[in-house]
Amino acid sequence: MKGCQNDCAAGCTAAAAKHVTESFKAADLIINPSTTFKEKPDPNGLVFGTVFSDNMLFIEWSLASGWEKPHIKPLENLSVHPAISAFHYAVELFEGMKAYRGVDGKIRLFRPRLNMDRMLRSAVRATLPGFDKEELLECIRKLVEVEKEWVPFSTSASLYIRPTLIGTEPSLGVKKPSRALLYVILSPVGPYFSSGSFNPISLWADPKYVRAWKGGTGDCKLGGNYGSSIYAQREAMELGCQQVLWLYGEDHQITEVGTMNLFLYWRNENGEEELATPPLDGIILPGVTRQSILDLAHKWGEFKVSERYITMSDLTTALKDRRVKEMFGAGTACVVCPISTILYMGENLHIPTMENGPQIATRFLKQLTDIQYGREDSEWTIVVS
Amino acid sequence: MKGCQNDCAAGCTAAAAKHVTESFKAADLIINPSTTFKEKPDPNGLVFGTVFSDNMLFIEWSLASGWEKPHIKPLENLSVHPAISAFHYAVELFEGMKAYRGVDGKIRLFRPRLNMDRMLRSAVRATLPGFDKEELLECIRKLVEVEKEWVPFSTSASLYIRPTLIGTEPSLGVKKPSRALLYVILSPVGPYFSSGSFNPISLWADPKYVRAWKGGTGDCKLGGNYGSSIYAQREAMELGCQQVLWLYGEDHQITEVGTMNLFLYWRNENGEEELATPPLDGIILPGVTRQSILDLAHKWGEFKVSERYITMSDLTTALKDRRVKEMFGAGTACVVCPISTILYMGENLHIPTMENGPQIATRFLKQLTDIQYGREDSEWTIVVS
Repeated sequence: MKGCQNDCAAGCTAAAAKHVTESFKAADLIINPSTTFKEKPDPNGLVFGTVFSDNMLFIEWSLASGWEKPHIKPLENLSVHPAISAFHYAVELFEGMKAYRGVDGKIRLFRPRLNMDRMLRSAVRATLPGFDKEELLECIRKLVEVEKEWVPFSTSASLYIRPTLIGTEPSLGVKKPSRALLYVILSPVGPYFSSGSFNPISLWADPKYVRAWKGGTGDCKLGGNYGSSIYAQREAMELGCQQVLWLYGEDHQITEVGTMNLFLYWRNENGEEELATPPLDGIILPGVTRQSILDLAHKWGEFKVSERYITMSDLTTALKDRRVKEMFGAGTACVVCPISTILYMGENLHIPTMENGPQIATRFLKQLTDIQYGREDSEWTIVVS
Repeated sequence: MKGCQNDCAAGCTAAAAKHVTESFKAADLIINPSTTFKEKPDPNGLVFGTVFSDNMLFIEWSLASGWEKPHIKPLENLSVHPAISAFHYAVELFEGMKAYRGVDGKIRLFRPRLNMDRMLRSAVRATLPGFDKEELLECIRKLVEVEKEWVPFSTSASLYIRPTLIGTEPSLGVKKPSRALLYVILSPVGPYFSSGSFNPISLWADPKYVRAWKGGTGDCKLGGNYGSSIYAQREAMELGCQQVLWLYGEDHQITEVGTMNLFLYWRNENGEEELATPPLDGIILPGVTRQSILDLAHKWGEFKVSERYITMSDLTTALKDRRVKEMFGAGTACVVCPISTILYMGENLHIPTMENGPQIATRFLKQLTDIQYGREDSEWTIVVS
């Protein structure tokens, strides 16, 4: 990064490339799986992220020795010094992806290279060590293969994959860590919509709390972006809303929903049918589902697809003019999540998402899950086994 | 916080009060100190935060059982589940304070209640459990008493105290944790200025990176504020500067330096002698040293003392007019840290801090260290033993 005069994104990419030179190798994997097996839970009624599979991927790094050989070993507590930088300065990042058991019995990952790209970008931003993305992906594939019985036998459940990278140097200096640990844990997750149909959510939009800002880390998946959101999330719930709609700037730009990206399907100011989502300007997390919805919509070619700013004023005007058709969140957990209400400036704005089908949201959900569960062939999936 | 319509600071204070009802008690302390003793290092040449004392304070909390009894026990690795929220969502906070061995042989803490106040505010913001501040202070006092041989026998060194509070629920949901761990570790730290005199530092001021923002967590001591700063700090060093001068907003307001608050001593726009530091508007960490410098300056009553905005334009104009006398950072580590250069928009701005003594910075350093090391009586210290 010496003398880098580019914007952050360009700088990060250049630095990310530099970090790839030395990596662990999937060919070096040491596989010593658990010899005892926990009972697999019924995927219905599971609470997200509370049950874990028997084994984990575990890879240590130090400035002195580089990456150690990757291990697949029984899931167990980590033994860490109380001074590690993950505990004090949130030198940490994570990813979220899923393995799906398809209708053909094959287990698939959905666009995992987008997760690997983002994880390496996050590592650079967090000053954590880089790695070869293909090697990590192959290690994760192997882990899922070892744990294949943990992938639910269901087309409304999946095995959530949580890669994590933390700074483990036992030192209180605020600096790039000289030790780190990359690990991956697996958690079977149930159907997001237990009824099989959409449950629309209500949002609280208040400029009092801001999720991310220009010059910050909102476009990377760093722990600090998430912990700071819980306080606002609790206030939203106390006001009877389920999630926070994060606003930005004096003009109250719409940015994200809880931990999901946001889409608006409407007739825009110029009378065009448009699917809109905020652009990746540094404060938006570049979601894999977000990208996939944009890609599908472009492929369909049936309406305008825009990465553009949308303010609360744009939205309220459009609601008055009855130009809003659907709003929905998009993320790995629920794929798409319809929005029915926004509490803003003391007023409950009704969003007619459900009244309109939701036609577009349902179509995205169907096509994405068709790909994920192997009902539709796609280059977006890779087969684990 | 139900229905709270106040601004964030007021809301946090109300919520903080509510959290105090149930706390651990210092009277319940279980003290099982280490029976082996590490060698105490020479305080000269110590690297900050790398050597730790023999024992730690350890207090567990759960939603089901509340706070467990506090323990003082040998410093050891923590055994934690890989899914804890401190690793994934930075549900974590810390404090920084010091114990000083005075010229009279007594060990003192410096305004520790300000740290306890801030720690409780941070806990509320991070949705971590509250506690009784006096009980925690008494537990810390006991820990320092047990470890009193670790307080350096020097009036240019001290024992750094690091209270830490982390979320330990083993669950991937982004939510208020149902388990937490409060611990305190101790680290002897050497003289900040090994020569005994000031070493002025150079700063890099670039609006590309922003430390904190309105609606965020910059006024609390949460881990996420710090890890996100390391990337910019490395870029500063690659450009030949030692620290980042964090700017904010279109008008490039001066906010903080690295992990310190910032002071400007100058003749202001109206020709007044003024000591100025940015106001606590939500993006500034309310430093204990910052507050103490303001309090001393008010007491001296010799010049105007202001918590006010200062932009880079204000500064460059004042430099041209030769109205700037001193700039310095203020923090627990160095007390005051003079600034000699700011690299801004490709230009090296020379700050004449050292040419002017630095008269004011030296005076603050002297009075604060006189109080800390017991050369001057003050209500700001409490005696440990």
